[in-house]
Amino acid sequence: MLRVYLDHMATTPVAKEVLNEMLPYLENRFGNPSRAYDLGFEAMDAIDKARERVAGLINAEPEEIIFTSSGAEANNLAVHGLANANKTRGKHLVSSLIEHHSTLNSLRWLQKQGFVVSFAGVDRHGEVDLNQIEKSTGKATVLVSVMLANYEVGTIQPVKEIVEIAHEKGALVHVDAVAAAGNIEIDVKALGVDALSISSHTMYGPKGAGALYLRGGLRLVPLIYSGVQEEGLRGGTENVPAIAGFGKAAEMAEKGLGEIERVRWLRDMLVESVLEIEDTELTGHSEKRLPNHASFIVDYIDGEALMQALSFEGVYIGNGTACISQVLRASPVLIAMGYPSRRAQSSAVFSFGRINTKREIEYAIDRFYLAVKKLRKISPFAR
Amino acid sequence: MLRVYLDHMATTPVAKEVLNEMLPYLENRFGNPSRAYDLGFEAMDAIDKARERVAGLINAEPEEIIFTSSGAEANNLAVHGLANANKTRGKHLVSSLIEHHSTLNSLRWLQKQGFVVSFAGVDRHGEVDLNQIEKSTGKATVLVSVMLANYEVGTIQPVKEIVEIAHEKGALVHVDAVAAAGNIEIDVKALGVDALSISSHTMYGPKGAGALYLRGGLRLVPLIYSGVQEEGLRGGTENVPAIAGFGKAAEMAEKGLGEIERVRWLRDMLVESVLEIEDTELTGHSEKRLPNHASFIVDYIDGEALMQALSFEGVYIGNGTACISQVLRASPVLIAMGYPSRRAQSSAVFSFGRINTKREIEYAIDRFYLAVKKLRKISPFAR
Repeated sequence: MLRVYLDHMATTPVAKEVLNEMLPYLENRFGNPSRAYDLGFEAMDAIDKARERVAGLINAEPEEIIFTSSGAEANNLAVHGLANANKTRGKHLVSSLIEHHSTLNSLRWLQKQGFVVSFAGVDRHGEVDLNQIEKSTGKATVLVSVMLANYEVGTIQPVKEIVEIAHEKGALVHVDAVAAAGNIEIDVKALGVDALSISSHTMYGPKGAGALYLRGGLRLVPLIYSGVQEEGLRGGTENVPAIAGFGKAAEMAEKGLGEIERVRWLRDMLVESVLEIEDTELTGHSEKRLPNHASFIVDYIDGEALMQALSFEGVYIGNGTACISQVLRASPVLIAMGYPSRRAQSSAVFSFGRINTKREIEYAIDRFYLAVKKLRKISPFAR
Repeated sequence: MLRVYLDHMATTPVAKEVLNEMLPYLENRFGNPSRAYDLGFEAMDAIDKARERVAGLINAEPEEIIFTSSGAEANNLAVHGLANANKTRGKHLVSSLIEHHSTLNSLRWLQKQGFVVSFAGVDRHGEVDLNQIEKSTGKATVLVSVMLANYEVGTIQPVKEIVEIAHEKGALVHVDAVAAAGNIEIDVKALGVDALSISSHTMYGPKGAGALYLRGGLRLVPLIYSGVQEEGLRGGTENVPAIAGFGKAAEMAEKGLGEIERVRWLRDMLVESVLEIEDTELTGHSEKRLPNHASFIVDYIDGEALMQALSFEGVYIGNGTACISQVLRASPVLIAMGYPSRRAQSSAVFSFGRINTKREIEYAIDRFYLAVKKLRKISPFAR
């Protein structure tokens, strides 16, 4: 049976070149990078090299990269760290209703500590309401945290405009770019952001590594304290193999962006085919979206059931953010976009990768047709 | 040239069996464990299996294990999480002067948030002063955090007695067992502790995984927020390969404790030889210490210089806690034990592993003699 993996938003396979970069640090080069002897130096060299590569992907300086254990940790570090480092300015934060749970739940923890958070709404296409951002950002606003692209609906946010609004009022901007990294070009200088999170395991790197870009000169309160690792901003012995792999993945992602037109073409082929099925709707924005992302509401069908049925045929798709898909049936993102609860349970998310082929997509479409037909036949809601 | 690695407190090589356990999850089994399809299930199965193995090593229940990215994160999570979850009882914490920096700096962050911390002193052998623990623990004390064994001097603390004192007064006890795990038997039930941290990369597992044991029924405020991973207590996509490797390492450590008498014999052989050099002193406790640990003050010599000189001969030793060895010359642990600052800079720490052989130790002793002779010849302080 063909295996067609179309859930790259949840995680990606590790590229062979990435694994090869990691292996020496899981074998002979096992030293602790904090040690001032050769086994330590070679481990630290691997981290330095990775730092340059990760910085290169987003046009940052190497010293502006803080390695973490995940994108979620990077989001936590940004929200907690920037809010607490700047609370003399005020205790107000701005975000949106469709952020990743690592951001939303970090904000909720800050609320318990006396911070006030304004959550901007989004339109039917998942675009953040700039007017709401503008109205809620004021003199006491420390930080505006928004995502660059959304996992579930692929919508790319107008980050540059948000940065302009926030900076004019003196607030900092953090951007969760985990879903975007490796799929679209990211230039922290052009965007003008103050902090930006990315993750390794969604761009063909290993799990266990993420990074926070922090614009040079900005202060940050750490989340994990220990020794002097990451300039004292993130303690704990560095996960050298994962960081080395992350670096290689970042280098490959930079080159891989050249392949994105082929991926976009595969995506468009699938969108066209899916929309031929009646009672389906593309969610998110038709143009301002990740080129490797297609998301639908397939009415009268449970998204989780569809995902499982397709997996039995070797086709792997998503039905929302992986982190919470097992507890929440109706997507909070689709609800925020104005969809009724029942329709928000009928989500199907396809996220493509460089490894996908035309033959795979044809197979996936074929299986998708059959699965929808079968599931609608037994659905109590179908016409 | 022979390579003799005697710095197992800083990090250990990854066992071959551990790497083999990891590889499938860096290759075909790359799924996100939060996904409800086979690729996700097999990843979650790996985590469940590791959870059982890690729990087995310390006689805990699998559901009492929270995976983190490191021992440092586990210490941070315990201190932050238990203090904040129980602050209605009071805002007082008790610890010791010789804790790892992940604990000390977590406590300092809590001090900034209004917690008061009492740091108990230690005696000349590095044993925590039980009288000070008893006197400082009161009705407002939320948590007592002490280490099971010290990295730098190997001293094993009277944790059972500390637990008795703390529990009698209604305070919880967290134990940093990172240096101890894999080297001595740990039984959380026999010790009676409420929380206990261990790490993968100091027991032949990979970097990037740690665990916090949290006694069933206790509440904890998370450090990293995201989805429902680790029962909502530690967010972020799980580092499946590292966790799987950690599990294998824990299983092997349980069996490896049988080899500890051979390791102890090698250690004793080295201690005897080193103490034959004049102006050397064994630091820490002569009996209540890790069986794989030997630490000395080698007077008139800079510990860092000695460590580097030996590394040129292929012999790797430590000179204090790896995390801070590059910034602090005089060991705060030795200072707390009453040594004067200059002597506290002359530290040499040997930590042995299952891989070490008699021939290696003989070679290391030989090189150590020569290095000490050479360095003392050029030392401005030597007699």
